[in-house]
Amino acid sequence: MRILSGIQPSGTLHLGNYFGMMQPAIELQDRGEAFYFIADYHALTTLKDPAVLRQNVREVAIDFLAAGLDPKKCCFFRQSDIRGVAELSWILATVAPMGLLERCHSYKDKIAKGLPASVGLFSYPVLMAADILIYESDLVPVGKDQKQHVEVARDLAVKMNETYGPLFKLPEHSIRAETEALPGLDGAKMSKSYGNTIGLFWEEAVMRKKVMSIKTDSTPVEAPKPIEGSVILELYRHMGSPADYEAMKTSFQAGGNGYGVYKKQLFEAIWEYLAPMRTRREELLRDPGYVDAVLKEGAEKANTIADQVLERVRKAVGLR
Amino acid sequence: MRILSGIQPSGTLHLGNYFGMMQPAIELQDRGEAFYFIADYHALTTLKDPAVLRQNVREVAIDFLAAGLDPKKCCFFRQSDIRGVAELSWILATVAPMGLLERCHSYKDKIAKGLPASVGLFSYPVLMAADILIYESDLVPVGKDQKQHVEVARDLAVKMNETYGPLFKLPEHSIRAETEALPGLDGAKMSKSYGNTIGLFWEEAVMRKKVMSIKTDSTPVEAPKPIEGSVILELYRHMGSPADYEAMKTSFQAGGNGYGVYKKQLFEAIWEYLAPMRTRREELLRDPGYVDAVLKEGAEKANTIADQVLERVRKAVGLR
Repeated sequence: MRILSGIQPSGTLHLGNYFGMMQPAIELQDRGEAFYFIADYHALTTLKDPAVLRQNVREVAIDFLAAGLDPKKCCFFRQSDIRGVAELSWILATVAPMGLLERCHSYKDKIAKGLPASVGLFSYPVLMAADILIYESDLVPVGKDQKQHVEVARDLAVKMNETYGPLFKLPEHSIRAETEALPGLDGAKMSKSYGNTIGLFWEEAVMRKKVMSIKTDSTPVEAPKPIEGSVILELYRHMGSPADYEAMKTSFQAGGNGYGVYKKQLFEAIWEYLAPMRTRREELLRDPGYVDAVLKEGAEKANTIADQVLERVRKAVGLR
Repeated sequence: MRILSGIQPSGTLHLGNYFGMMQPAIELQDRGEAFYFIADYHALTTLKDPAVLRQNVREVAIDFLAAGLDPKKCCFFRQSDIRGVAELSWILATVAPMGLLERCHSYKDKIAKGLPASVGLFSYPVLMAADILIYESDLVPVGKDQKQHVEVARDLAVKMNETYGPLFKLPEHSIRAETEALPGLDGAKMSKSYGNTIGLFWEEAVMRKKVMSIKTDSTPVEAPKPIEGSVILELYRHMGSPADYEAMKTSFQAGGNGYGVYKKQLFEAIWEYLAPMRTRREELLRDPGYVDAVLKEGAEKANTIADQVLERVRKAVGLR
């Protein structure tokens, strides 16, 4: 089974990214042949600062490797290193009905949020279909907002097969269950745009200060603390063992401790949880050539498959 | 001065194509550095039969070479041999406002004529902009219907330069004056879609029969013939010398000859006019490897320039 996932190069990653997207991706490495690409072509639709794009791509590559992506198990590469993708995207566009894209929510949502309506933003689902189809992907794990785009890829695969004979297998999507689960410092969903994140690779002092700043209610020290909706408990549940989590829960219900005690415990759990990633990241930062080599090797493997598929498509449509 | 022209692989060429597009293109070979490509990516928006596309590309290549395109003077290649074009097209799409394409007449016209509204048809002007900009073209000779697309290319060049600093020079268009001038067998504009064409490479018997079938009025043999709007005279003007043309005109005005006489004269002039092209075409048909070699060499030259430009663009936008 080939699994495909695109990673947005959107700057420093946080715990919400980790549990929502990185950890599931890392787990999938063992369940099939994982192809993970950094979606730099896609990033161009919203990011027009070349220095920031370059830095984000680099950071996201390092952070994923630090978090446990294993280039021996998966194929990790940059979208723009596979030049056949843009070509397949054009070929798919020639069979893609306008109505199919006009129905896509993601485009409408982005315009509603004030992004300028560009042809890239509009036709992005066709590029994503090319990404999916060019590696003959079986499974595409996505957030809920991207489900429709996998359906577009299926529709275009069907359209191509109908027009030119059997060319593509139909990809399936899977929804990442936990994507929206992790709360941020203020209790809302942890998200860069809310400014409520906990960075994976913050300095110790910053991390401590931020965790200590988690918004809590005014329950007195001696009184039992509410379990329901507690940001501290919910974050702690992701960090510690089930036994640790139960112990904190019991202590909440018993009362007698202020929130500061739990925040300190949470900070220590987070700090410890991230320790192996921090170590790995420091190694990676000391060896920048390694990251380049990983992406280069990934691109070579991805290109081998993409070239074969594209050659088949070119013949089928009459370009060869 | 670099001159760029895209050639539609739309099947067997006729006299209207020759005087409207091929002859001007061939003349331009001597006025600058001409880059001519067979627009096979573009053809996919309307042509879904791979065998026909392959054949049309081959035929148009042979016909242009037979008609006088000189690969020593110009760079002649297939659009799809330049893989950077699709990539540049994506990059341009990320800065292309939807409104710019929504205003394009050509898309609306094609939909009005019953073509299915596809993303390829819609976003084709962005691909054409990539074609123009990737070779740093100065001049793009076009038919009137394509003028707006050269303006789109200029707009996108400006947009890229504003966003990322100076990257592209602004191309100019020139309108081919004679594009719509040649009448067909029935007096309407010679066009494949009207079925009134005179093929460049028809068999002698077919050509004679078709020329003899030109629609004429019922002026008696002995009477003077009307000059104005005469298809025979207008076609003859393109074939013979000015003296021959004047002689036929005088004879029209004098009367005494039936139209058959003039049609025969016209047939002979056309047949003679096309003789060197026919000879050259027969040579080319006997040497298929030559056409492949020409297109390959053209692609190499075009790719050298395209790769340089694309590398500059990739750096500027942050993909490198």
